[in-house]
Amino acid sequence: MKLSRYFLPILRDDPKEAEIVSHRLMLRAGMIRQASAGIYVWLPFGFRVLKKIEQIVREEQDRAGAIELLMPTIQLADIWRESGRYDDYGQEMLRIEDRHGRDMLYGPTNEEQITELFRDSAKSYRDLPRILYHIQWKFRDEVRPRFGVMRGREFLMKDGYSFDLTAEDARKSYNRMFVSYLRTFERMGLTSIPMAAETGPIGGDLSHEFIILADTGESEVFCHRDLVETPAPKDVDYDADLSGIVEEWTSKYAATSDMHDHAQFAREVPEDKQVSARGIEIGHIFYFGTKYSDPMRCRVQGPDGNLVTLHSGSYGIGVSRLPAAIIEASHDDAGIVWPDTVAPFFVGLVNLKTGDAQTDAACEDLYAKLRNAGLDVLYDDTDERAGAKFASMDLLGLPWQVIIGPKGLKSGEVEVKRRATGERSTMSPEEALNMLVAQVPTGAPRPIQLD
Amino acid sequence: MKLSRYFLPILRDDPKEAEIVSHRLMLRAGMIRQASAGIYVWLPFGFRVLKKIEQIVREEQDRAGAIELLMPTIQLADIWRESGRYDDYGQEMLRIEDRHGRDMLYGPTNEEQITELFRDSAKSYRDLPRILYHIQWKFRDEVRPRFGVMRGREFLMKDGYSFDLTAEDARKSYNRMFVSYLRTFERMGLTSIPMAAETGPIGGDLSHEFIILADTGESEVFCHRDLVETPAPKDVDYDADLSGIVEEWTSKYAATSDMHDHAQFAREVPEDKQVSARGIEIGHIFYFGTKYSDPMRCRVQGPDGNLVTLHSGSYGIGVSRLPAAIIEASHDDAGIVWPDTVAPFFVGLVNLKTGDAQTDAACEDLYAKLRNAGLDVLYDDTDERAGAKFASMDLLGLPWQVIIGPKGLKSGEVEVKRRATGERSTMSPEEALNMLVAQVPTGAPRPIQLD
Repeated sequence: MKLSRYFLPILRDDPKEAEIVSHRLMLRAGMIRQASAGIYVWLPFGFRVLKKIEQIVREEQDRAGAIELLMPTIQLADIWRESGRYDDYGQEMLRIEDRHGRDMLYGPTNEEQITELFRDSAKSYRDLPRILYHIQWKFRDEVRPRFGVMRGREFLMKDGYSFDLTAEDARKSYNRMFVSYLRTFERMGLTSIPMAAETGPIGGDLSHEFIILADTGESEVFCHRDLVETPAPKDVDYDADLSGIVEEWTSKYAATSDMHDHAQFAREVPEDKQVSARGIEIGHIFYFGTKYSDPMRCRVQGPDGNLVTLHSGSYGIGVSRLPAAIIEASHDDAGIVWPDTVAPFFVGLVNLKTGDAQTDAACEDLYAKLRNAGLDVLYDDTDERAGAKFASMDLLGLPWQVIIGPKGLKSGEVEVKRRATGERSTMSPEEALNMLVAQVPTGAPRPIQLD
Repeated sequence: MKLSRYFLPILRDDPKEAEIVSHRLMLRAGMIRQASAGIYVWLPFGFRVLKKIEQIVREEQDRAGAIELLMPTIQLADIWRESGRYDDYGQEMLRIEDRHGRDMLYGPTNEEQITELFRDSAKSYRDLPRILYHIQWKFRDEVRPRFGVMRGREFLMKDGYSFDLTAEDARKSYNRMFVSYLRTFERMGLTSIPMAAETGPIGGDLSHEFIILADTGESEVFCHRDLVETPAPKDVDYDADLSGIVEEWTSKYAATSDMHDHAQFAREVPEDKQVSARGIEIGHIFYFGTKYSDPMRCRVQGPDGNLVTLHSGSYGIGVSRLPAAIIEASHDDAGIVWPDTVAPFFVGLVNLKTGDAQTDAACEDLYAKLRNAGLDVLYDDTDERAGAKFASMDLLGLPWQVIIGPKGLKSGEVEVKRRATGERSTMSPEEALNMLVAQVPTGAPRPIQLD
């Protein structure tokens, strides 16, 4: 993408309304614009990140055997009355009346809708187990939306739901999602820690929040340091028994403040391994048994012919919160530092003297070759001065920068900079091309956009 | 995807509520389920079609130089008051009050929101021209939703918006979209005809509806037969002058009933070339000049330093309506006949004797090889009887079927059937593999889902 034809409104100054660094950087880097309190437009640069994150979530859900569908945003109040949650949910639920006076609502979550759907479609134990998920916009009418997309009102969530015949089977579905979440977040460059958590309005007996540690996190968390350093499991066979992996992650202390037991923490974790920090919730999984299938009569015929009420769980990932969470975890004074797999473009190409025929030609040539090799490239072909271009590229945080100017070209060289380390080296354009192609991360999602 | 692990609730009987064939087939083939009047769940099989269509739309928009972003579904009433449309829009607009008593609405379209965004971001003529688009859910509270997703209340639309300095430039943007629409629909196997149309509540001076002919179409249309037979332009350079292509398509008579002039039709079109038929609208483009930028003060600094009010157009594609439109255009008595490029799976693999070791092994082997070659395969590994499997496969309408049973395997053969023609041939599994890989259409979008 050529910057001269792109829509990337960069802000030079810090916006006053932003309290945390991710919000500030997302506004400055032209990723989002507020449309109204807690409701954002995703500008093209931010949209690309959102799509890459969504695609990693999708690929890891598919890999774990979950099946994607799409439920609507607007739901009937009736199904929430059936589950008993309509009155419980309070003012966070955006209630709507349609032109015929029917009570509707903008879904804050989808347990009722998926339970109704599954009840009407599945007939027999042979239709089990199933994990169904969708990636859809939700609305929660927060009384005080803040921190940009971190706590917005309209937000994109991946929510999955499992249906099993028994509590024991349901635990296997829970374990699938548990393990896939570790992998999902690691692919985005995040170290997530599953922590015992309260179940809140979703309900249920068993629940883990997936937390990343960050100074600006909204909640206090406590865990064993080993968990921060354990890599996510690799080459998982999701049909195999996953309880060993889950056991490895849950046997060490990790709890949000709601569930924290200081005595237990002090007893179980050696002092030098005690981590007490702030965290950001990026995923939350629940096992709630028959909480919805009971009142909504979600049952199938079991192997013995009798009707069995299904056991379920739900599994959320805050997709539109993740770009902010990733920035909280990965930035410096100059701007964002995107992990390779979610970067909106892999390479930023800087033309130091737009209008100079030789420099333009060298830039165009490398731009074309990088794109032909399948790389996402943002080419700054504007006539801004060099200093402003450097500042913008650092702010935008693309993993690699290639800087081309008349001076270097005289000796046949371009400059390549790794954003994360600031390391620079000079090489021929061909060497730069080969090096960058070799650096494309294997964990990046398949591209969904043409430039 | 193995059918035994999929979520594909097929209905054996015709649902009573469906008045048109696409609605009936979408329900029967487990593509959609109604959640409430005019609001649908996209089940996994339907969701795949929706995603493929969305991806073709995205690729062709990107190719034409449009830039993707994402606006929220919930908008402030204030911007609609600013444009003057808040009161005009009537009961089709879903009006919402948030917990603080602010007037909000579920966007039925986005002229106001994008104009506000562009006004706040673009400063100079050098930020032009731009075409911005998004693919987002909309809501129109139709008094009588019907025909399934063809006329739903919550629907997915691609809506794009152009911003130009002059009316002449705006016409170039209009032409870009005009040409890209022809290509977009052709890639889906549809013959679309641009027809002069009324502008309705969007407003403006110039407008074309893109129509496909279908007996069940909602409106009467009139056109020159040559238009039905003209192929979409190929290898378009969108930066070149496109007026010749547009001229070729608009010089021959084509109008919806609203704009139809019978005398002109009779005068301009030879009798044997007169097509009077029913049509389905799948796209609609508008040029409306300064209709929104005037009241909303969307202006930039022109080359001479003076403020210029921008000229705009908007460009819609009914993404969630397209699966139904495609089925209306492509089905037979046995079910759906998917065009290759949008088929949810390219191949349906039928195991005629699940449980028979040799048949299972041959199926698993071919299934793995087809998937390794990058093909989407639905493998019917259930223990249904053969007749039911054949009926389901025909109903689902996948472009190719491969049928494997013990009898054929004895002579080392499988049967391959082309759904569209019913043509069958027998060959070795290796030949089937090679043949199918060679048939993958070049116009198919990049895959976004893993199986």
